[in-house]
Amino acid sequence: MGDGISILPVEGVPEVKPGDDLSLTLISAIRGGGRSLNPKDVLVVAQKIVSKAEGRLVRLDDVRPSLTARRWAEAFGKDPRMVEVALSESKRVVRMERGVLILETRHGFVCANAGVDHSNVAEGVVSLLPEDPDGSAYTIRLALEKEFSVSLAVIISDTFGRPWREGLVNVAIGVSGMAPVADYRGSRDWMGAQLRVTTMAVADEVASSAELVMGKDQGIPAAIVRGVDFAEEGSNQLKLTRPPELDLFR
Amino acid sequence: MGDGISILPVEGVPEVKPGDDLSLTLISAIRGGGRSLNPKDVLVVAQKIVSKAEGRLVRLDDVRPSLTARRWAEAFGKDPRMVEVALSESKRVVRMERGVLILETRHGFVCANAGVDHSNVAEGVVSLLPEDPDGSAYTIRLALEKEFSVSLAVIISDTFGRPWREGLVNVAIGVSGMAPVADYRGSRDWMGAQLRVTTMAVADEVASSAELVMGKDQGIPAAIVRGVDFAEEGSNQLKLTRPPELDLFR
Repeated sequence: MGDGISILPVEGVPEVKPGDDLSLTLISAIRGGGRSLNPKDVLVVAQKIVSKAEGRLVRLDDVRPSLTARRWAEAFGKDPRMVEVALSESKRVVRMERGVLILETRHGFVCANAGVDHSNVAEGVVSLLPEDPDGSAYTIRLALEKEFSVSLAVIISDTFGRPWREGLVNVAIGVSGMAPVADYRGSRDWMGAQLRVTTMAVADEVASSAELVMGKDQGIPAAIVRGVDFAEEGSNQLKLTRPPELDLFR
Repeated sequence: MGDGISILPVEGVPEVKPGDDLSLTLISAIRGGGRSLNPKDVLVVAQKIVSKAEGRLVRLDDVRPSLTARRWAEAFGKDPRMVEVALSESKRVVRMERGVLILETRHGFVCANAGVDHSNVAEGVVSLLPEDPDGSAYTIRLALEKEFSVSLAVIISDTFGRPWREGLVNVAIGVSGMAPVADYRGSRDWMGAQLRVTTMAVADEVASSAELVMGKDQGIPAAIVRGVDFAEEGSNQLKLTRPPELDLFR
C-alpha cells in the first residue's frame, strides 16, 4: 500500500461505432500509448463507448412518444421522444417532477433519465445503458486478460447525480474481476473497537477516481487504475444496487 | 493530463488528541515518510482526526437522552445516548425508520446519524463532525502552503451512504483551495454537441480516490492526490450541498 495508486488515462481511443470489437479498440489504444496492463490493474471504461459498440443507440426520429411523455415534456420544455425512451428503459418512476425524471432502470440503478443520454453521440441520437453491464465488463476483462496475460478487473462506469449533493460522480454500473463492495463487517478499527456495519463501495470509488483523468469533454473514455487493494470476485458477493425492500427513498 | 494522477498514503500519523496542532502532525508525517508536497497537490484528511484535534468528542456518560431518543433506541436496539447526540447535531430529520436515522446536519449534509460516530475513538466516546469543515480545511491549507511553499487544496473527508446504492463512499465535507464542483455547463462535448447541464463533484471524486489508500481500518487518515486538474476556488462557486428547495427527496 505504501506505493499508492496510479490513475492513467487511456488516450487515443477512436470514435466507437456499433459492431466494433471494443476489447480490440482498447487493447490498441493501451498499446499505442506505450502502456501495458499489470496484474490487478482495474480498467475503467466509460459506459458511452460500451453502449456505442453494443449498438445501444436510438434515433429520436424513430420514437413515438406516449401521451404521458408528451404532456410532461411539454410542461418542462423537454424533448418528448427522449422522455419516452427514458420511460421505456425503466421499471419504476422514482420522481417525475420539476422537470427532473429519476427512474429505476431494468438493472436496478436509480438515476436521471434511466441513463439515456445525448452527449457524445451524433445529433438526433441517444444512447441507452448496456443491457448487461456486468456481462460487458466480463467480456472486456477476458479479452484483456488474454492479451496481457494478467488477471484484471474491469468496471463500466457512468456519471450519476445524488439526491442531496450537487454535481455528478462517476459510479460503477458493471463490474467484473473484483468484489464491488468491500466488507469490513466484523473487522476491527485501528483502535481495536469493532466496526460492525461498514461496507465500502470500492468499485464506485475506483470509478470516481478514474473520472478525474477521463473528464466529461476530453475524449478519454477509459483509464487504468493501478494499485487498488481489491478483494476477489466471490460467488455470494454484495452488490452495489440496494434491494428495494431496504430503500427508504422510493 | 498524460501523466495521470497519483494517490499517496500519508503514513505514520500518530494518535491525535484534542488540542493537537493537526497541521504540524500532518507536516511531520509527510516529511517523516520522505515526501513533500507539490504545487496543486490535494491533501485529503479524514474527518475523524480533524474532529479529534478540534475536541469534537462527546462522552456518552455525559449525555441525557430525550424521551424520543430513548423510545426509538429501544425499538431498534440502539444506544439512546448516541441517538440523542445525533439528533442534537441536526437541524432536520430526513428519515427515522427501521433503525436508520438519516439526518440533515447543521452544515446541510444529509447522512446517517449526522456523522456522529464511535469508530476509531476511545470506548464510551463518540466523535462529531467539525463545526466548520471548510474552515478546518482552510487552516490546514495555510499551514501546509507555508511549510512547503506551494499552493495546495485541502479536503476534509467523511464516508457517507447513498439512498439507492450499497456501501459507503468517501465524500468531501470541507474544501479549501479548489472549486468543489467543476462546471461544464455551456462547454462542448468531444462530438461538438453542447453539454448544457453537467457539473461534476470533483472534490467528492478526489475524496473517494483518497479513500482507496486510506481504508477504514488501516490507520492512514490522510492521502496526497497529485495531478488533479482542478479549478481555482472562486468567490461565487457551486457548493456540494444541494439547497433544500431543489431537494426532491426530503
